[in-house]
Amino acid sequence: MNCFGTGYRTCLFGASHAACVGAYVEGMPTGEKLSEAIIQVELDRRSPGKGAVTSPRKERDRVEILSGILSGKATGAPIVGIVRNRDVDSSAYDALRRVPRPGHADYPAMVKYGGEHDHRGSGQFSGRMTAGLVLSGAIARQPLERRGIRFLAQTVQIGGVVLDEDVPFSVAEKIVRTNAVGCADRKTADLMRDEIVRAHEDRDSVGGVVKCVVAGLPVGVGEPFFGSIESLISSMMFSIPGVKGVEFGSGFRCASMRGSDHNDPFVVKNKRIRTTTNNAGGILGGLSTGMPVEFRVAFKPTSSIAREQKSVDIVDKKTVDLTVEGRHDPCIVPRAVPVVENCSAAVLLDLMIQGGLL
Amino acid sequence: MNCFGTGYRTCLFGASHAACVGAYVEGMPTGEKLSEAIIQVELDRRSPGKGAVTSPRKERDRVEILSGILSGKATGAPIVGIVRNRDVDSSAYDALRRVPRPGHADYPAMVKYGGEHDHRGSGQFSGRMTAGLVLSGAIARQPLERRGIRFLAQTVQIGGVVLDEDVPFSVAEKIVRTNAVGCADRKTADLMRDEIVRAHEDRDSVGGVVKCVVAGLPVGVGEPFFGSIESLISSMMFSIPGVKGVEFGSGFRCASMRGSDHNDPFVVKNKRIRTTTNNAGGILGGLSTGMPVEFRVAFKPTSSIAREQKSVDIVDKKTVDLTVEGRHDPCIVPRAVPVVENCSAAVLLDLMIQGGLL
Amino acid sequence: MNCFGTGYRTCLFGASHAACVGAYVEGMPTGEKLSEAIIQVELDRRSPGKGAVTSPRKERDRVEILSGILSGKATGAPIVGIVRNRDVDSSAYDALRRVPRPGHADYPAMVKYGGEHDHRGSGQFSGRMTAGLVLSGAIARQPLERRGIRFLAQTVQIGGVVLDEDVPFSVAEKIVRTNAVGCADRKTADLMRDEIVRAHEDRDSVGGVVKCVVAGLPVGVGEPFFGSIESLISSMMFSIPGVKGVEFGSGFRCASMRGSDHNDPFVVKNKRIRTTTNNAGGILGGLSTGMPVEFRVAFKPTSSIAREQKSVDIVDKKTVDLTVEGRHDPCIVPRAVPVVENCSAAVLLDLMIQGGLL
Amino acid sequence: MNCFGTGYRTCLFGASHAACVGAYVEGMPTGEKLSEAIIQVELDRRSPGKGAVTSPRKERDRVEILSGILSGKATGAPIVGIVRNRDVDSSAYDALRRVPRPGHADYPAMVKYGGEHDHRGSGQFSGRMTAGLVLSGAIARQPLERRGIRFLAQTVQIGGVVLDEDVPFSVAEKIVRTNAVGCADRKTADLMRDEIVRAHEDRDSVGGVVKCVVAGLPVGVGEPFFGSIESLISSMMFSIPGVKGVEFGSGFRCASMRGSDHNDPFVVKNKRIRTTTNNAGGILGGLSTGMPVEFRVAFKPTSSIAREQKSVDIVDKKTVDLTVEGRHDPCIVPRAVPVVENCSAAVLLDLMIQGGLL
Repeated sequence: MNCFGTGYRTCLFGASHAACVGAYVEGMPTGEKLSEAIIQVELDRRSPGKGAVTSPRKERDRVEILSGILSGKATGAPIVGIVRNRDVDSSAYDALRRVPRPGHADYPAMVKYGGEHDHRGSGQFSGRMTAGLVLSGAIARQPLERRGIRFLAQTVQIGGVVLDEDVPFSVAEKIVRTNAVGCADRKTADLMRDEIVRAHEDRDSVGGVVKCVVAGLPVGVGEPFFGSIESLISSMMFSIPGVKGVEFGSGFRCASMRGSDHNDPFVVKNKRIRTTTNNAGGILGGLSTGMPVEFRVAFKPTSSIAREQKSVDIVDKKTVDLTVEGRHDPCIVPRAVPVVENCSAAVLLDLMIQGGLL
Repeated sequence: MNCFGTGYRTCLFGASHAACVGAYVEGMPTGEKLSEAIIQVELDRRSPGKGAVTSPRKERDRVEILSGILSGKATGAPIVGIVRNRDVDSSAYDALRRVPRPGHADYPAMVKYGGEHDHRGSGQFSGRMTAGLVLSGAIARQPLERRGIRFLAQTVQIGGVVLDEDVPFSVAEKIVRTNAVGCADRKTADLMRDEIVRAHEDRDSVGGVVKCVVAGLPVGVGEPFFGSIESLISSMMFSIPGVKGVEFGSGFRCASMRGSDHNDPFVVKNKRIRTTTNNAGGILGGLSTGMPVEFRVAFKPTSSIAREQKSVDIVDKKTVDLTVEGRHDPCIVPRAVPVVENCSAAVLLDLMIQGGLL
Repeated sequence: MNCFGTGYRTCLFGASHAACVGAYVEGMPTGEKLSEAIIQVELDRRSPGKGAVTSPRKERDRVEILSGILSGKATGAPIVGIVRNRDVDSSAYDALRRVPRPGHADYPAMVKYGGEHDHRGSGQFSGRMTAGLVLSGAIARQPLERRGIRFLAQTVQIGGVVLDEDVPFSVAEKIVRTNAVGCADRKTADLMRDEIVRAHEDRDSVGGVVKCVVAGLPVGVGEPFFGSIESLISSMMFSIPGVKGVEFGSGFRCASMRGSDHNDPFVVKNKRIRTTTNNAGGILGGLSTGMPVEFRVAFKPTSSIAREQKSVDIVDKKTVDLTVEGRHDPCIVPRAVPVVENCSAAVLLDLMIQGGLL
Repeated sequence: MNCFGTGYRTCLFGASHAACVGAYVEGMPTGEKLSEAIIQVELDRRSPGKGAVTSPRKERDRVEILSGILSGKATGAPIVGIVRNRDVDSSAYDALRRVPRPGHADYPAMVKYGGEHDHRGSGQFSGRMTAGLVLSGAIARQPLERRGIRFLAQTVQIGGVVLDEDVPFSVAEKIVRTNAVGCADRKTADLMRDEIVRAHEDRDSVGGVVKCVVAGLPVGVGEPFFGSIESLISSMMFSIPGVKGVEFGSGFRCASMRGSDHNDPFVVKNKRIRTTTNNAGGILGGLSTGMPVEFRVAFKPTSSIAREQKSVDIVDKKTVDLTVEGRHDPCIVPRAVPVVENCSAAVLLDLMIQGGLL
């Protein structure tokens, strides 16, 4: 169905061309303090209009809470929040009904839901649905942050520009929100911005990588096998449109490593058990180790580009040249940063509730 | 809980030190032909005893079906299959109860389930649980293969040895089962075997990458957002012990690509709609495109190595030198090949049933 | 959680003292025609203001669809509908915070959710939540009615007034909506109305029984054991506030019967297999038999009565005399009729989708 | 699917003509003491062979635990228990394949699963599946009984013989297990036995009512709306073959009552809040009140009777006379007593775990 989670469940509804997009959220413990202002801040981070790196379309996403929060506290009832859509005129998309856009959901959606007659392809697969993820995640992070758990996503690659060094969490936290690309290093941020601008000038788009760190998790969050942190985080991340890869800790690098290098040795530091390295990405056997949980998410270049592309008319079965109209982000990574960050909170709150840790 | 899936659900039970490991499986349509011999073949592929590359321990995993299959057909009742354990003497593990093995689930399991008093750490996190995954997947693949859907996993990297070329599906299919490492190229298979032997001689272990291709899926398998093929496949793959990364199609390479390169152009070929490239890995918007579904899974080097390692006594909070006893696979990748292959069938059958396609 | 169903899932949100009550609904097949006018008609049937038999409070429940219906058709996305609350001033309830009303959820809710500090008791347990049930059911019945399945609930008992005879479905269908109590016989309807008026005049309330018939179901709807029609219908009915009993077909009378009387003999009539009697209530082994599904639901007298009652102050632990303020229905049965009727449609649509029958 | 519950989940598998029947159970907290002997005692209560009142067939149901219990404690892994079938020769049933037995699931199962070719009708709808319910319930009751929660089911009606008086819990507890019908009064038990014998001598069967009381539940067990105690208990009870009605507290009698009589007044007794009456059956708003939870379950007369009955050949569509072979219980109520008692424990453990009360 359209839901994710067991202890804390997020269900998405609406569509980019419906009246609204929103989230139905269950499981928040009765009485938890919840600020709508925090939700709004996170939604604002996801909004376009960040100068050169995102689409200029000006749409402010205003959260409206319909259920579940009263006087700043969770009532125990499901929380329902919506963000109304403007500009739901979808006539611009009519031309696409027979000609699927390369790299988009159009073609399989046409086949699955009935070809040219169905709106679903242009509505339910939209990146706009991630507003619901941010909504749920910005709710979920609040009880966790009160318990000392911190979330930080950052852009570590845009096209050919890579941030290699590991910026300390508390430094990164300050810098990430101050630049349009969400990078933890100012100079690299400028280079990334240039990379995006260049792609845009070429009427093209570019991909990138978001890294996310969750600090302060207690030991033992996660469940064996299907409830592993990796299973649930990856499942959530791959729900975000455009994601092609997810890796934890050493990730794909582990394939060329030896066990003697990869195993993180345990040590006692300030009476706490730590590991000297963190190839595990803070997770062993699917459970948190107390070290920071770290993962990386690869985003493909935006599918909608202004260049002419090859496609086919699915009715005539003839090749056609297609030019995708409309204004699109030349790179989705900057706006994906708050999505990754917030929806990881939804996953971890889910696991903490499942494990009786909240 | 311990279950995966909605339309076709797999629940794992047992433990490496219990009477058995097994799977409880729901959703198989009544009347589907199911061969126990096929299940046994897949379990045999997962068994150790493949010469130099796996542990010499000789344990044959014999499937026993307790429910749901009658006269070679699904009755509609849940299917329950077990594999009995031998050698359930766990005294060898007693020493580990206070000293967590680096790279293992021991430490977070001790904290979560009660330190030295609990067996769960040594039982439910075991790679042996993947026998249940193979069991469920070897059941799931049968109705799919009858409908022309084929599954092929293969080893494409062991340590420094990488198979770069794309061996055609029908060629690979024949070669993969003929060598101990599960590689689609005989020469590379020999090099991979040498890499594993070297790691073993060094009392060490080595990681690798498994690639899996699913051919013949109809267009439109998958559900929007949380039910995307990527979400479910990755969730299943990260349930397998030792997995650190999962990527689809272009995967992490997409981060440095431009949209004009990454978008797979549509063409008509033999009256069917195809794409000329497959950076999408056969998936757009979470739905199958009709092109082969392709993904890669990174496995870390086996955590249990014969070398002395640093750990801590969690009671005394003192550093100790630990030597892990027992015979262990120097590389888990060869035995992971049938696990990846079969459990991907369980995921895709689930999505096909959800989508009313079976 | 707050959801019911597998194939067609209804989740309730909101509360009587929140901004709205509503339903989040999943599983409606893409493309099904759905009329908002029909939803509104069913909500109107549930509204108060039916002369002497219900509370005079004038609140019209206007449905607002936020997601999932576009141009009169299901889009495939979740359907979210709300009914806004007016009069959410809950100061009248403040006095109740320490003194639980007899027959109400107040006392266990105070203990469960935190005594005098929590609103949940007065909000989430309200009969007003059944507006969400009607909303979901009025959506569910539409595709079923198009397939010839008809739903009819009727009042068969109010206090001492009982309608014994079986009014034929198509006759009853016409009469039930023409009187305020929802009875299929006009004369009995008058007597029932009098019974309610008498209770009201006595500053008291009275109970009753609603019978529901579902005609036109195909054979084989339902699943073995936990998915039996009775399990799901009863589970749904007991969710309605005030229900104390549910019985199917012969119901409690079966206890004093012999098998030779109770077994409904099979016959062939117009080439269709029927039974000559229907003690089974249209269900055998949890599955529909093709005969009308029949069940009866007992409602207790409204708990809120104007008379002074004995209660206790849960803080002081002292006995107090309590008078419940506000205007209340002297009998909830008339307004329960459309609730029973519509929510049974939600259950049967769920089972038909589960069984691949829609 | 084949599962019940959220916090404590029971999944049934097997069939009367398969190798075994069994239960897969999830959610038992790690470390809870669990005795297999107690499970065996409850299974023995369900077994036939109680003299005149049940079928003489001698089949002892021996429980075999395959997973989840180690050294008398829950390991945290799913608990899987089976009871092997003997006598799985189903040739006696072959004649029934075209001619449905009146009162049985045969007819709708034939239509649903494929007419004469499928065994499911004779296997998955069998009363024998309740062995799995007893298995799960006998596990669930153990942690609850340790916390002072007691379960007692008893026969209060067989045909025309009714036990009207309310035998005190601790008296009833002793008597119920000492007579073959499970009645709390010895004299009435004899009359009930005679009623069953008479039905048997008449080659007929007879129905009855089981009452169940759960004492010692804390206040606040249950969840609003769909998670009400009544919703879940009734759903479970209606899964038991042969159940036609379920009522709580005053039950159907409430329909003729006034609110001033029905509302149970609160009082303080020994510093605890109680009600002077218990029309609520220990439940308000779906939540436990601290008073005993009481419900009654109506069972129809056994469908299989030795008398000749009217049925139809579903292939020829002709009327035939049918005589059902085999030995059958003339009344299922005595063997249903331990089923009702144990499976109510499975439901309440589920709700207690959901509510964080265990």
